[in-house]
Amino acid sequence: MSEPAVIGYYTTKFGELWNQSLSDLIKESVEGALESSKININQVEAIFFANMLGGILDNDLHLSAKIAESLGVNVPIFRVESACASGGMAFHLGLNYLKSGSAKTILVIGGEKMTDYDVEDVTTALASAASEEEQIAGLTFPGLYGLLAQSYLQKFGYTEEHLAHISVKNHYHGSFNNKGQFRNQITLEQAMQSQYVARPLKVLDCSPISDGSASIVLTSDPNLISNSAQKIQILASEVATDVISLKNRDSLVEIKSTKIAAKKAFDSAKIDRSDIDVIELHDCFSIAEILALEDMGFWEKGKGGEMAARQKTRFDDNDGLVVNTSGGLKASGHPVGATGIKQIGEIFLQLNNLADLRQVKNAKFGLTHNVGGSGGSAVVNIFSIYETKSN
Amino acid sequence: MSEPAVIGYYTTKFGELWNQSLSDLIKESVEGALESSKININQVEAIFFANMLGGILDNDLHLSAKIAESLGVNVPIFRVESACASGGMAFHLGLNYLKSGSAKTILVIGGEKMTDYDVEDVTTALASAASEEEQIAGLTFPGLYGLLAQSYLQKFGYTEEHLAHISVKNHYHGSFNNKGQFRNQITLEQAMQSQYVARPLKVLDCSPISDGSASIVLTSDPNLISNSAQKIQILASEVATDVISLKNRDSLVEIKSTKIAAKKAFDSAKIDRSDIDVIELHDCFSIAEILALEDMGFWEKGKGGEMAARQKTRFDDNDGLVVNTSGGLKASGHPVGATGIKQIGEIFLQLNNLADLRQVKNAKFGLTHNVGGSGGSAVVNIFSIYETKSN
Repeated sequence: MSEPAVIGYYTTKFGELWNQSLSDLIKESVEGALESSKININQVEAIFFANMLGGILDNDLHLSAKIAESLGVNVPIFRVESACASGGMAFHLGLNYLKSGSAKTILVIGGEKMTDYDVEDVTTALASAASEEEQIAGLTFPGLYGLLAQSYLQKFGYTEEHLAHISVKNHYHGSFNNKGQFRNQITLEQAMQSQYVARPLKVLDCSPISDGSASIVLTSDPNLISNSAQKIQILASEVATDVISLKNRDSLVEIKSTKIAAKKAFDSAKIDRSDIDVIELHDCFSIAEILALEDMGFWEKGKGGEMAARQKTRFDDNDGLVVNTSGGLKASGHPVGATGIKQIGEIFLQLNNLADLRQVKNAKFGLTHNVGGSGGSAVVNIFSIYETKSN
Repeated sequence: MSEPAVIGYYTTKFGELWNQSLSDLIKESVEGALESSKININQVEAIFFANMLGGILDNDLHLSAKIAESLGVNVPIFRVESACASGGMAFHLGLNYLKSGSAKTILVIGGEKMTDYDVEDVTTALASAASEEEQIAGLTFPGLYGLLAQSYLQKFGYTEEHLAHISVKNHYHGSFNNKGQFRNQITLEQAMQSQYVARPLKVLDCSPISDGSASIVLTSDPNLISNSAQKIQILASEVATDVISLKNRDSLVEIKSTKIAAKKAFDSAKIDRSDIDVIELHDCFSIAEILALEDMGFWEKGKGGEMAARQKTRFDDNDGLVVNTSGGLKASGHPVGATGIKQIGEIFLQLNNLADLRQVKNAKFGLTHNVGGSGGSAVVNIFSIYETKSN
């Protein structure tokens, strides 16, 4: 066996895809990923699948068997759910399945269908990722992240404009991503003038409700890897959890699960933060990107506001670190179960020099960061260009 | 590292537990399993959790983080769902996580809360494990298994009485299980006179709606294993999937996912079917026990009706194979996510000579069989008394 590699990736368009069912979306992303990796479905020995809301919104569980039927296979299929971190969790478990030797080649699929339902129902369903007490108190996710944003701005003396810079940058990136939900660039003024959703967060601080599916092929088969023109190596994959309730946290200006997972990932990858060229991180709200870059150790705690305002994490204007070239959750869209897989796919594109108009020059190391709810769970993965060696 | 072993087990009572929330039940089963294995929570490096219906019935997802809060840990926690096979799937993934080397000691928890809701809502929620088309047609799970039972009786010329023998035997076993939902023995006449739910299945052919949680501790740490008085070894764990829709199956008198998983498990365990002393299998309906014993190769296809009528799988009267000493899903109860874990726990008790009044004499090899929906997914595990050796 070789070091596991990602050898294929495909994502559907993200957005309001009213002509495609969840099953249609999954089929499209699986076929695309198989074609990308030049393998056929019979070479797939197991499947990991991430979905959050099918049960609540569509009375649609047991998707392992539904996928078996749709793909015509009898292999082990596992559905994993950890709210918005479901995709990252599915990847992590899939990777460990390869390492256990129980399979050599697997598919990791993420998919979510959210725009066919009333917004109120989707908002309530998403709140299932919060504690019972928070749900009863009427806290939606914009509300929860609004509290985190408020704490941050207050503690470190920033303004809403500091947050807005994140959205401006992510919409700029998103304008180069033809699979993304929003292709429009926005100005700081537009961001500042958008309506409040949950103070201090406005519409343009928030990721949208989206449909979409993304799939990757992961293998430890030395032949498949050496024959594959496109591949990335996995240096680390780490998961952490934390108390779900904001009221029980030690601090409201950090996400502890992100800190723990990132520290473990860098310890395990044996590279420095300064080695990372490109990151796809969980910007479900603008404040989340700032917290993530601080909590993962890229920015000093409390400096994130001014760092964001510098706008130096763009693919075409940066100090060596580029963030969310896909447009992030903000502009690319956030079909919950698919997000963690699309993040890995974006790094796959970047490290294989396949990211077209948004390509980061000479990208060698990439990182993905996927968060569940308000930080009750987090996954951090570190990738590099594939170095040929067997173990 | 040693061969992984189960070193601890605890189950709450199964039944209508209106004084305990899902979180209360999980806490009780975790504390019991830790005490049983004589470890503390800080030795647990990862947690796998099985639950099916929390999202639909209680808008309760992201249970990874809720468990982190309740147990006061930050370790990786994974929620796995495959309808009624969720427990078996969680165990399978947990075992592979140990084999990957990412953790040495883990908890596998199953839990479900079903009796706080209207029966109609629970029936609809359970139907989420069937295909969309089957749901639209109004097929409930008694309905789906009713079709399987009808096909079986018709094809092989049996009567409803042949099915009823399964329930009589499982209630007999259940009368010795103080954690089970039903402790009453039933007669063949009572079974035959119970009301129809979905012809030919009657109330006493059907497993009940239940609350409960079960947990096991799984480790590959040689010290923990050698210090542990109670342990079982895992010889095989295999998963298979199949088309979800009955109308797309090749046969309605077999469960293909069970056949595939059992064949792979025996190939991998390198023992014969005749070596197995005790089985916990997925008797969600009486017909399911007959199909399972045939599909796993213990009974010849089509002979299950007459074999059932012989009543020779009782712990105190058998031909060398004992089935569902816990009372099975029928008498012990079926809190969906917990079932697959309780099955493993029952084999743990049997192989450690801890099964009290229902102990199978000289049991050395055990098997568990857990099914999702009408057979869209299945898990088969084979266990033995722990043989000391390192690898």
